[in-house]
Amino acid sequence: MTKQRRPGASKHLGEAGILARLLTHVPGGDRVEVGPGDDAAVVDLPGTRLVITTDTMVEGFDFLAHTTCPRWIGHKAAVQNLADVAAMSARPIALVAAVSTPAGTPADWFEQVTEGLTRRAGEDGAQLVGGDLGRADRPTLTITAVGVLREGERAVLRSGARPGDVLAIGSPALGRSAAGLAAVLSGRVQVKGDGTVVIAPGKGGNPAPPSHHATTPLDPALNTQLEGLVAWHNAPDPDLSLGWTSGRAATAMMDLSDGLVRDGGRIAVASGVQVDLHATALGGDVDALAVSASALDADPWDWVLHGGEEHAMLATFAPGAVPQGFRVIGVIREHVGQSAPRVLLDGEPISGEGFDHFG
Amino acid sequence: MTKQRRPGASKHLGEAGILARLLTHVPGGDRVEVGPGDDAAVVDLPGTRLVITTDTMVEGFDFLAHTTCPRWIGHKAAVQNLADVAAMSARPIALVAAVSTPAGTPADWFEQVTEGLTRRAGEDGAQLVGGDLGRADRPTLTITAVGVLREGERAVLRSGARPGDVLAIGSPALGRSAAGLAAVLSGRVQVKGDGTVVIAPGKGGNPAPPSHHATTPLDPALNTQLEGLVAWHNAPDPDLSLGWTSGRAATAMMDLSDGLVRDGGRIAVASGVQVDLHATALGGDVDALAVSASALDADPWDWVLHGGEEHAMLATFAPGAVPQGFRVIGVIREHVGQSAPRVLLDGEPISGEGFDHFG
Repeated sequence: MTKQRRPGASKHLGEAGILARLLTHVPGGDRVEVGPGDDAAVVDLPGTRLVITTDTMVEGFDFLAHTTCPRWIGHKAAVQNLADVAAMSARPIALVAAVSTPAGTPADWFEQVTEGLTRRAGEDGAQLVGGDLGRADRPTLTITAVGVLREGERAVLRSGARPGDVLAIGSPALGRSAAGLAAVLSGRVQVKGDGTVVIAPGKGGNPAPPSHHATTPLDPALNTQLEGLVAWHNAPDPDLSLGWTSGRAATAMMDLSDGLVRDGGRIAVASGVQVDLHATALGGDVDALAVSASALDADPWDWVLHGGEEHAMLATFAPGAVPQGFRVIGVIREHVGQSAPRVLLDGEPISGEGFDHFG
Repeated sequence: MTKQRRPGASKHLGEAGILARLLTHVPGGDRVEVGPGDDAAVVDLPGTRLVITTDTMVEGFDFLAHTTCPRWIGHKAAVQNLADVAAMSARPIALVAAVSTPAGTPADWFEQVTEGLTRRAGEDGAQLVGGDLGRADRPTLTITAVGVLREGERAVLRSGARPGDVLAIGSPALGRSAAGLAAVLSGRVQVKGDGTVVIAPGKGGNPAPPSHHATTPLDPALNTQLEGLVAWHNAPDPDLSLGWTSGRAATAMMDLSDGLVRDGGRIAVASGVQVDLHATALGGDVDALAVSASALDADPWDWVLHGGEEHAMLATFAPGAVPQGFRVIGVIREHVGQSAPRVLLDGEPISGEGFDHFG
């Protein structure tokens, strides 16, 4: 409860000073008629239909402060939301950010979050145009992203996949975010404020008390791979432009946020079809993660099949019409019988913890 | 940190069931091409420029659970955001809602918040088109509202007030939200889940232990007024349509969120002018609150001058051009000398705790 609205509440953080620093990361633009500072932002619309999505990240639930850094938090918040706009085959144009933090959060934190957000958004042509600063017990970011579709441009939904279509992914490597999450959850990862990843040597599991477990010095190549995976988990960097460029030809599309099996299942349910994943098409993804999986006592197939937060474009196309940037990883079949699984791997049901957990 | 994105996290709340109930409050509409359920919503745009704003409410910081009810929380979240769109003289068209709650929050809570939100938004022609459910320690709502301006329609900014203009408010009574807040903070107010307000008798201050203070039975008329003020604080109901109808003629406009002195000062600073409030024009507002102010040991002038969260349209107009729905409460003067106050009352600086506190 405040006597003032939230901008007043964040006076405690030195709102004016913080805002002034944040705004150095918010460039104006031809399309921005009114930017931050008035009641709302005004943005010129190069289209006739608005595409809009919103998503919240709460520290402790959606990320852990000590295993990420402010710049990555902003980056990931941007990607999560821009991916939803892209997955409708719409070009993102603007974002607003509501940021709530405990009292005493340093101005640097806000600035770096904003920098990560605006930089990644800028790569996709979207601008931060407004926001709200306020108080909360834990750092909390809610981003809303908007995009547009012009007259005659259709939104690509999840429901358009047809038997005979192929399933394709707009990413060269799957499972990286899940692998990075596993590294983070191993307790061996610490991330410094500037994004430097420090990985303690050790054998899987939680941090080993020195006297209890034998630790093995970390292979430099493994160390580098784990660093990259932790960075990818915290700041995934998919090519979202596929959504509003070649992805426009898709019969169905979504972004890969909860893993191939779960998200493939969503397309299957929405379209009334069945997805059959090709193991050979995913073998390279699995092999690339084998060393890290071994170090973390994990099954790389779990990461590739069930790992989420990649935010790459997952789409179906008519056979023979798969555009550049996408690679085929499965096929769409008729869904025969109510109890038939929605997602198969080489024609077989997918078993294992991952599927039960997410299903 | 979750292995899944937030929709997965809220599985614990029975997401599918909760969503199904929420969606009964989300009517479709001619303008909604894609509603909830896909990656993003798609909304037809009856204009060429987008007006967008976002605002967060966190339980314990922006409202207190035991002094409001879920329907009011949704209502107030809608009003706060729609008011910002209206204050740009734009007609709101859509909202998205990101709602984060502790595990175990009952489905009723979500449904009533959604009902309060959609009902109030619907009165202004705006539809809830999407959202995000997730976990947090405290109930947290972030609403993003969007509106449109057509070709040739200008956004009314805070910066257009000119000396000689009059200051007007689109509300019949000011200070009600602040008075309701004072009642809430007195500790004598309890609000039941259905919005019933219970006010304990007593003399000001915190709840009086029975043996320590003489309590006076509550005058029924006072009780009714306090109930109304508490309801108005929790669910203010200003006429926002003034913003995109007669308010279009304003030279400057904003919504009254932080009190006349603070918000008048914002218009003054943005426009490079000085605001002189008329005491006689505010006398009726003050008189209407006198009985409650006496019961709560408060100065009703503080509520009227410094009370926020009314969200009525505060606007300046050329003299003689004040449209229906607005009443004149002051005049715009030249701001002479850097150290001159931005806001006066009958030509005199405004002193008192309120101003220092908010200034």
